[in-house]
Amino acid sequence: MQSASPTSSRSFNRLVVFGVGLIGGSFALALKQANAVKQVIGVGRRAETLKRAQALGIIDAIGDASSVAGADLVLIAAPVAQTETLLRELKPHLQPGTVVTDAGSTKSDVVQAARAALGDKIAQFVPGHPIAGREQNGPEAAIATLYHGKKVVLTALPENSPEYIAMVASAWQQCGALIHHLSADEHDAVFAAVSHLPHLLAYALVNDIAARSNADRLFQYAASGFRDFTRIAGSSPEMWRDISLANRSALLAELDAYTLQLSTLRAMLAASDGAGLEQVYARAQSARQAWIAAIEAAEQARAYEQGGD
Amino acid sequence: MQSASPTSSRSFNRLVVFGVGLIGGSFALALKQANAVKQVIGVGRRAETLKRAQALGIIDAIGDASSVAGADLVLIAAPVAQTETLLRELKPHLQPGTVVTDAGSTKSDVVQAARAALGDKIAQFVPGHPIAGREQNGPEAAIATLYHGKKVVLTALPENSPEYIAMVASAWQQCGALIHHLSADEHDAVFAAVSHLPHLLAYALVNDIAARSNADRLFQYAASGFRDFTRIAGSSPEMWRDISLANRSALLAELDAYTLQLSTLRAMLAASDGAGLEQVYARAQSARQAWIAAIEAAEQARAYEQGGD
Repeated sequence: MQSASPTSSRSFNRLVVFGVGLIGGSFALALKQANAVKQVIGVGRRAETLKRAQALGIIDAIGDASSVAGADLVLIAAPVAQTETLLRELKPHLQPGTVVTDAGSTKSDVVQAARAALGDKIAQFVPGHPIAGREQNGPEAAIATLYHGKKVVLTALPENSPEYIAMVASAWQQCGALIHHLSADEHDAVFAAVSHLPHLLAYALVNDIAARSNADRLFQYAASGFRDFTRIAGSSPEMWRDISLANRSALLAELDAYTLQLSTLRAMLAASDGAGLEQVYARAQSARQAWIAAIEAAEQARAYEQGGD
Repeated sequence: MQSASPTSSRSFNRLVVFGVGLIGGSFALALKQANAVKQVIGVGRRAETLKRAQALGIIDAIGDASSVAGADLVLIAAPVAQTETLLRELKPHLQPGTVVTDAGSTKSDVVQAARAALGDKIAQFVPGHPIAGREQNGPEAAIATLYHGKKVVLTALPENSPEYIAMVASAWQQCGALIHHLSADEHDAVFAAVSHLPHLLAYALVNDIAARSNADRLFQYAASGFRDFTRIAGSSPEMWRDISLANRSALLAELDAYTLQLSTLRAMLAASDGAGLEQVYARAQSARQAWIAAIEAAEQARAYEQGGD
C-alpha cells in the first residue's frame, strides 16, 4: 500500500546515523540538502570511515551510542546482523520522543532482533527498507539524490504510534522517496521473489561456469545478455549470505517454486514441445513488457507532478 | 581459437542477403561502408521489408533465389528454422566460386540442414555466428557499426577450402569483427552455457512470478537488479523457442548441471550453512570480476591497436 498523500514535512534537530556509508550517508546528505535536519551525528566501528564522512560534510560530528540521548531521529544503516547489538547499546540512551528506524533488506529478523533488544521501548522502533543502491559503497559513494523517486517500505509494528510512523515517513519523503507500507512478513515474501532469489540464481550460474575445466573458454564467449543477467552476482557475498539466512524460509519457498518451474520447462524441452516453450517464453515476455511500461508510466507521471510544483 | 592475424581484405562484386533485418542489414551496411562490396541484392518473404531496406540504402536491388547466380558471397540471415528451405531454393543457382554463410545462433542443426539441402555443394557453405545484437529489429535497426569489436564464430566444415573460409572471415573482418573458430559442437555447448541457459532461466523467473495471484504486487517492488536479470526475457519467444529446440541436448545438459547447483545451494540454505553460501557467492563474485576485468582489458587493447593504425 502506498501512502496517498505526503505527510507534513518535519524538521529534525538531531539525527544520529549508525553506519555512514552509501545508505546512511545518502540519507544524511538528502536531509541536509532539504534543510530538514540541524545536526547529524555519525556512529560507526571505524574511526577512519567516520572521519572521511565528516570531511565530506555528511556528518557534523562523530559520536557513540550515548549520542542517541537528545536525538529526535536515529537511523541504523549498518549490516543487518549488527542490528540487535546496536539497539542494545543505544537502548539505555533512548529517551521518549526519539524514533529509531533502520534500512535493512530483510524485516522479520530485524523486528525479532529489535523486540529482543528494545523490550518495552519497541514502540519507538519503526522498521524500514529503502529500495535503492549503487555499485559503489562507503561514504564517498553517498549522494543526496540516491532516494529520489525510489520506494521506501515501512513495516510498522502494532506498537508504533501514527506520529512515530509519520516522522519516519516524513524523513524519507524529504529525501525524495515514495512511502509504501507492508507487514514484515509481506515484505520478506515479496523481496524473496523479486530480489533474493534472483541474486541466488545469478551467483549459482556464475559459480557453475567458474567451476568448469573450460571456464575460460565459456567466459570468453559470454556477451551482454550474460553480463546483465549476472550483474547482481557482483554484489557483496557477506551481505547476501546474511540476507539469504535472514530470509531463509521465504527464500527456500521461492527456490522450490522456481525449481518446479524449471522442471516443467525441462520436460517440455525433453519432449521437443515447441508450442509449450513458446507459450512460457511469450507469457514471460509480455509480462515483462507490461511491467516495463508501468515503470515508465510511473516515471513520467512523477516527472509531470514535479514539473507542476 | 581466435585468428592471430587478419586475412587479406577482399572485395566482393555481388553480395546476396537473405533477410534484410538487423543482422543481414547491418552486414550489408558495414561492407558498403568499408567499400568491400559493389552490389547488394536483398531477398526476403515480405516485399514491404525489402522496399524499406532499399529505401534505406541497405540493398541496391530486390531479388530472389536465382540472384545467387553470379554472386561471390551469400549471407543467410533469416530465422534458423528457414535455413534448410532457403538453401534448397538457392542450390540450383549456386555456381562454383560462390560462398554461402549464415548468422544462426545454433550451428549443429544448421550444418545438418545444410548437408541435407546442399548435398554435393556443401563445401561452399561456411557456417557462422556473429555475437552481436540490439533490442530493436528490422531494417530500420540495421547499423554499419553493429559488428565493431564483436566476435564472429566460424564453425568451418572439413569440406570447406581454406580459400572459402578466408573469404567469409575477410567479409566479417571488414565489418570490424574478430574471427573465432570452433567446431559446431563446441559452439553449441559453449552457447548453451553462456546464452541459451540464461535466457531459459530469465523466462522461467518472469513466468513464475507472472503466474501468481499477487503478481502485480511482486512486480511493483521489483527494482533494477530484477530488471537487468530479466532483460533477456524480453527477447523474441519464437526465436528462443527455435534456439532451445535446435540446441536441445546441450541445453538439457546445462539445465541439469544448473539444477544440481541449485540443489546444493538449497541444502546449504536449509542447513543455515552461512559459510558454504558465502563461499559460493564469493567464488561467483570473484570469477565475474575477473571476467569483467578481462573484457575491459581487451577493449582497451583494441582501442589502442585502432589508435595505432
